[in-house]
Amino acid sequence: MTTVKLAQPVAIVGSGTVAGPNEGKGPLAEYFDQILEDNLAGQKSWEKAEQLIMQSAIEIALKDAKIGADQIDIFIAGDLLNQIITSTFTARKLKIPFLGLYGACSTFIEGYVVGSLILQNQQIHCIVTATSSHNSTSERQFRFPTEYGGQVPVTAQYTVTGSGASVLKKKGELPGAFITHTTIGKVFDYGIKNPFEMGAAMAPAAVDTLYRHIKHSEYPLEAYDAILTGDLGHIGKKIVCQLMQEKGMAIDTIYDDCGTMIFSEKQKVFSGGSGCACSALVVLGRMFDDMRSGLIKRLIVVSTGALLSPTSTQQGDSIPGIAHAVTIEWRSNEGRK
Amino acid sequence: MTTVKLAQPVAIVGSGTVAGPNEGKGPLAEYFDQILEDNLAGQKSWEKAEQLIMQSAIEIALKDAKIGADQIDIFIAGDLLNQIITSTFTARKLKIPFLGLYGACSTFIEGYVVGSLILQNQQIHCIVTATSSHNSTSERQFRFPTEYGGQVPVTAQYTVTGSGASVLKKKGELPGAFITHTTIGKVFDYGIKNPFEMGAAMAPAAVDTLYRHIKHSEYPLEAYDAILTGDLGHIGKKIVCQLMQEKGMAIDTIYDDCGTMIFSEKQKVFSGGSGCACSALVVLGRMFDDMRSGLIKRLIVVSTGALLSPTSTQQGDSIPGIAHAVTIEWRSNEGRK
Repeated sequence: MTTVKLAQPVAIVGSGTVAGPNEGKGPLAEYFDQILEDNLAGQKSWEKAEQLIMQSAIEIALKDAKIGADQIDIFIAGDLLNQIITSTFTARKLKIPFLGLYGACSTFIEGYVVGSLILQNQQIHCIVTATSSHNSTSERQFRFPTEYGGQVPVTAQYTVTGSGASVLKKKGELPGAFITHTTIGKVFDYGIKNPFEMGAAMAPAAVDTLYRHIKHSEYPLEAYDAILTGDLGHIGKKIVCQLMQEKGMAIDTIYDDCGTMIFSEKQKVFSGGSGCACSALVVLGRMFDDMRSGLIKRLIVVSTGALLSPTSTQQGDSIPGIAHAVTIEWRSNEGRK
Repeated sequence: MTTVKLAQPVAIVGSGTVAGPNEGKGPLAEYFDQILEDNLAGQKSWEKAEQLIMQSAIEIALKDAKIGADQIDIFIAGDLLNQIITSTFTARKLKIPFLGLYGACSTFIEGYVVGSLILQNQQIHCIVTATSSHNSTSERQFRFPTEYGGQVPVTAQYTVTGSGASVLKKKGELPGAFITHTTIGKVFDYGIKNPFEMGAAMAPAAVDTLYRHIKHSEYPLEAYDAILTGDLGHIGKKIVCQLMQEKGMAIDTIYDDCGTMIFSEKQKVFSGGSGCACSALVVLGRMFDDMRSGLIKRLIVVSTGALLSPTSTQQGDSIPGIAHAVTIEWRSNEGRK
C-alpha cells in the first residue's frame, strides 16, 4: 500500500485561518480570515497566544461549515511545541474526543490523511483538524532565547505565526473541495546536521512522497493544476524541481512551495516561511480561493516536516524529514460527481 | 459518535516487549520478551538507548507475526520525548510510511485506536504500532537533571523503561486476540497543578472514557473479564473505583491499574509505574498470556496520559488528562467467530 484512493472522498466543508502580524503584511494577507495585530494576541505568553490562535481558527471553521462543536466526532490536531500543548490545551476547551499528532510541519496534511482514512468508518461522520505554529514560541523552544538576537544564515527559515482549521465530512454538498487520495510519508535522512538548513533536509522526503503519490494514483501528471510543498523555502524548492526532473516528472510549471509564497522578498525571511501553519494558511487561504474561482481543479499538497529536536541535534544526530500528501479536487454540479 | 464497534475486528498477530532492568526485577519479569541489563543498553545516551529498545520490540513483534517489514503498510508510533524523537528515529531505520502520534502515556492505546480505524480501509492490510518510555530520558526532560537526586513525594510515579510493539492485521487466524471496539478520549482538567500527582490528574479522563466505552458497546459490564487502566498508580486507581461506583458501575473485582502491577511494593516506586511503556508491557506481556491460557476472554484497556509540558507547568497551567480505550477479545475456533 502506498497511495490510498479514498472509497468515499472526504469533503472539506469549512475552514478557518488566523495569521500573525508579519503574515498579514505579506502578499497573501487578503486571503486570511483573521490577522493578529501583535504576536501576543492579548495573552500573557506566546504559548497562550498560540492556543488562542488555534481556538479562533477552529471557531471560524465551524462557523464556515455551519456546524456546532457538538456535531464533531473527533478533533485531530498537532503543533510544534513540546508535548503539543497548543493542541491539547485547545482540546481541553473543546470537549470533543481528541487524537494528538506529531509530524512537525507536516501536521496539516498528516491531519488530513488520518482524518480522511478514519472517516471511512461508518459511525464517524465529521472531524475537525487543526494545526498551528508561532514564531516566538518556536524560536525560544528550538533555537535561542528571543532576547539573544542571534544572527542566522541565509539558508534559515522564518516560522510562520498562525493556525489553520478544517471541518471534514463524509458527505459534502457540491460545489466543494474533496480529499480524494492520500499518501503517508516515509522518514528520510540525508545526513544534514545544520538546523538552519531544514529545506534541504526535508526535500528528499517531499520528492519520495510526491513521486509515489502521482505514480500510484489513476491520474497522469498533466491532470493536476497545481502542486504545493509545505515549507521547503527557496533552497528546498529548487532541490525538489531538480530531483523530480531526474525521476522523469517535470513539475516546474505547476509547482510552488508555501514557504516561498507566504512572505514577500522585502520581508527579510531568508529562505522563506516554515512551521505547521505555513502550508495550512497558504492552502486554506489562497488555494481554496483559486479553487472556488475555477483557477484550480485538482491540487496536490505535500506538507513537509523536519523531525529534529534540540536534544537530537545536541547529541550530534542529523535531521530526518517526512512528507505527507493528499489530492484535493474541486467538484462542481456539472460533470463528474 | 463515541464508541466505534469495528466493522472488521482487527487481529493482533504479533507483539514484542522489551523491559528495563528495574522492570525486569518486578513481578511481571517472566512475561517480557527481552530484559535489559542496564539502562544504556550499550548506547552512548539514554535517548539512543530508548531508540534501540523500540527497534528491538518491533523486530520481536515482526518475528512473532512471521512477517517482513516490507509487508507493513504503515508504522504508527509515539513516545514521551520532545518531538517524539524515539519514534521518528526508529521510523528512519524502518523505511515504512510513518504516522507520528502524541498522547503522552495514552499512546499505546491511541496507536491501537488509530491503527484499527485506519485498517478498515480496503487498501490497508497491516500496521505496526509501537510506543516506549525510558526512566532516565523522562526524568531529565520533565523533571530535574538526574544528577540532582531530588526527593519526590509519595504521590509521584516512576517512569517505566521499555517498549511494546504490535502487528495489527485486518485478517487474523484463530485462536487469537482481536480489537473489537474503540473509544477516543476527551481532554479533562480538574485543576491539579502538581506534576507529582499525575494519577489524580488523569483519573477523571479514565473514568469518562471507560464509562462511555462500556455504555456504548453492546456488552453489559458482566461480559468483561478484566479492565485495566494505564498508569494511574495506587492513588488514581482508588479514585477510578470510587467514581465508577458513583456512576453505577462497580468494577472493583475485575479492575486493576498497570502502574500498580509492574513493580512490587519492595521496589520503592512510590505510587507506581507510569510512562507509555507501562500499559504496553503489562498488556502485551501479562494480559496476552492470560488470554492465551484462557483466563481472560474479553478485556478493556484504558491507557491514560497526562498532557503537561514543563513550559505549561512553569506558566502556572494545570495538568489536563486524556484516556483512550479498546476492547480486546480472545477468539477461538469454537463458538463465536
